[in-house]
Amino acid sequence: MGNPKVLNNYGSFDVTFVKGQGSVLTDVNGKKYIDFLAGIAVNCLGHNYKPLVKAVAAQAKKQIHVCNYFTSDVGLAFADELLAATGFEGVYFGNSGAEANEAAIKLARKYGQLNGGSSRKTIVTLNKSFHGRTLATLTATGQDRFHPEDFAPYVQGFKTIEPNDYEGLENAFDETTAALFFEPVECEGGVIPVEKEWAQKAAELARKAGAIVMCDEVQTGMGRTGALLASDALGINPEVVTLAKAIAGGVPMGACLYRGNGNVFKAGDHQSTFAGNPLACAAGRVVLKTLTAPGFMEDVLRKGEYIRNTVKGWNLPCVVDVRGKGLVIGIQVNKDPAAVEKKCLADGLLFSTAGSDVVRLVPPLNITMKEIDAGLAILKAGLEA
Amino acid sequence: MGNPKVLNNYGSFDVTFVKGQGSVLTDVNGKKYIDFLAGIAVNCLGHNYKPLVKAVAAQAKKQIHVCNYFTSDVGLAFADELLAATGFEGVYFGNSGAEANEAAIKLARKYGQLNGGSSRKTIVTLNKSFHGRTLATLTATGQDRFHPEDFAPYVQGFKTIEPNDYEGLENAFDETTAALFFEPVECEGGVIPVEKEWAQKAAELARKAGAIVMCDEVQTGMGRTGALLASDALGINPEVVTLAKAIAGGVPMGACLYRGNGNVFKAGDHQSTFAGNPLACAAGRVVLKTLTAPGFMEDVLRKGEYIRNTVKGWNLPCVVDVRGKGLVIGIQVNKDPAAVEKKCLADGLLFSTAGSDVVRLVPPLNITMKEIDAGLAILKAGLEA
Repeated sequence: MGNPKVLNNYGSFDVTFVKGQGSVLTDVNGKKYIDFLAGIAVNCLGHNYKPLVKAVAAQAKKQIHVCNYFTSDVGLAFADELLAATGFEGVYFGNSGAEANEAAIKLARKYGQLNGGSSRKTIVTLNKSFHGRTLATLTATGQDRFHPEDFAPYVQGFKTIEPNDYEGLENAFDETTAALFFEPVECEGGVIPVEKEWAQKAAELARKAGAIVMCDEVQTGMGRTGALLASDALGINPEVVTLAKAIAGGVPMGACLYRGNGNVFKAGDHQSTFAGNPLACAAGRVVLKTLTAPGFMEDVLRKGEYIRNTVKGWNLPCVVDVRGKGLVIGIQVNKDPAAVEKKCLADGLLFSTAGSDVVRLVPPLNITMKEIDAGLAILKAGLEA
Repeated sequence: MGNPKVLNNYGSFDVTFVKGQGSVLTDVNGKKYIDFLAGIAVNCLGHNYKPLVKAVAAQAKKQIHVCNYFTSDVGLAFADELLAATGFEGVYFGNSGAEANEAAIKLARKYGQLNGGSSRKTIVTLNKSFHGRTLATLTATGQDRFHPEDFAPYVQGFKTIEPNDYEGLENAFDETTAALFFEPVECEGGVIPVEKEWAQKAAELARKAGAIVMCDEVQTGMGRTGALLASDALGINPEVVTLAKAIAGGVPMGACLYRGNGNVFKAGDHQSTFAGNPLACAAGRVVLKTLTAPGFMEDVLRKGEYIRNTVKGWNLPCVVDVRGKGLVIGIQVNKDPAAVEKKCLADGLLFSTAGSDVVRLVPPLNITMKEIDAGLAILKAGLEA
């Protein structure tokens, strides 16, 4: 391993990358890999995407960071464009998905305080969800394996329900509920899409109990599912949506969008030194412009369908299910997905696993059909091995 | 105001910046401002610093972000260089000061769990401290005004003691203490340096009780006090140091350094998608190289002394105290520091306040004497007004 001092945080593979071009990465030995991972759904425009590189270089020269007690031209422009494209009233920027979700958690608590006082503070999340690694987002995460005694005591005020379970909704919400908070597709949990009907019923019941609805789109937002926001397809009009990963094409950034009853933050309620810095905003503008260009989302949907249909068409005995939306694809297998991942990595294809038995593909959204076919050939051999 | 949808998070001034050069910023109207704020101690090398701009542009072309299940050449290089320069064993990267401190809090809890089980989980922080805006770092922050009922319930396991209070140390630590966690200079709290003797006594007693010592150097680390780490001057050899703001010259980044008894994280204990991304690491390498060049720290110390002595020399009746270390400077006044801030802003000088009665100056570390003198002239007029 290159450097155990850093690597031990992740148990990383012994592969060190030096550069990328499109959806192909090159390691220190000159070996090339098709990228079906995109830095975990981050590099939405692949690597060395000219308009992004140009914008980052130009902005670095103008100003990388400005104190949030003031504004920057590019920060205001990106906020305006993002709100116009998503239909939200306001945005709180941060630097990661965890930070975007921390903002949402604080927002939900304040909403609860304003609409029921200290008794309305519970945030309802889903089983198999993943919301981050800070203490509060870790607590929100509906997976026991993320709650070892090592990091206890965890944060109070969270409750977990089962996704797509209609009966469980009966007693899910009451006057103590501040918010329903869920991922439209549970990505880390195993690429589990939340059913539209269930989401609508859950949102209806949550609101009837006086709560707001918040979607964690850290992994699924910004075009990943074939819509700018994954929640667009659910028809639930969430009061809050959190974004990160793809939002600035790789430059660290998160965002907490809010509207309606979710518009409760006042000046000073939440801040972050780097939040909405000009460098990230300049990158974000390129991403948003590219994603909202005519035909881009249709392409994402088409490529996602193509990959899913191709994998299904292989009729491999090890494949239990092929699912997902747009370019977040889960292939449930009846063998160890980590073994498939390892073999494919050796053969020059990058992806990661999700849950306990799922191969997850989240390639750059602008991946070419040629790159897709090259990657699928390696994947097929990996699944067959 | 340019955009109330973003601005309402910060109650920002109606000033929108478009570019910077050295320690001078330019707003949308072409007005220039001397920068004694540096984006709150972030732009340590000022604006448009050629080697930094060049490194960011070149890295953006190679690869902006890579998944942490792998490594990048520049990520490994920066980690090695940072550890060599600071004398730590390992580093966990993140994207902000709050994230670095969240990592430290989890680390302290795991240390406590391994050295006393679930009864050793308390983290002792200082009155007037500031550690961040996520729920756990907010709770760690020793200022009541940051704990409104809006965001309750807060996180368990924190205890606050008075800095520089020797008597208070008697009962500060016991078998429930996992860590002592403090800023070598309490910056947001009012630029209050922790006395060396007190820090040593506190560290000694904390360790005697079985706890580790962690320094929050988010604002004071990376050369701000005239040493690479502010804790270097305290002679306490902390097990953990957190860094952010200046670490990558403006590109969002945080770091949690650990060694000795602080080396407790195992693979999977803590992760972050963007952490240690190549773009931030490329910027960080330039910052570290610049800061560790011969004579740089001496210059920081000299410029800090010059500013403090100049302000003292004015003998203004409104100035109660002038303090700080290196280029984090606090001017305690007996009038509203926000009024001084506002007048200076109008006159073309940027800085911010700290605590309730302190003018805080944290200019770029490479600010020129000419820029310092120009800024001080405006500051003098602002204090006299």
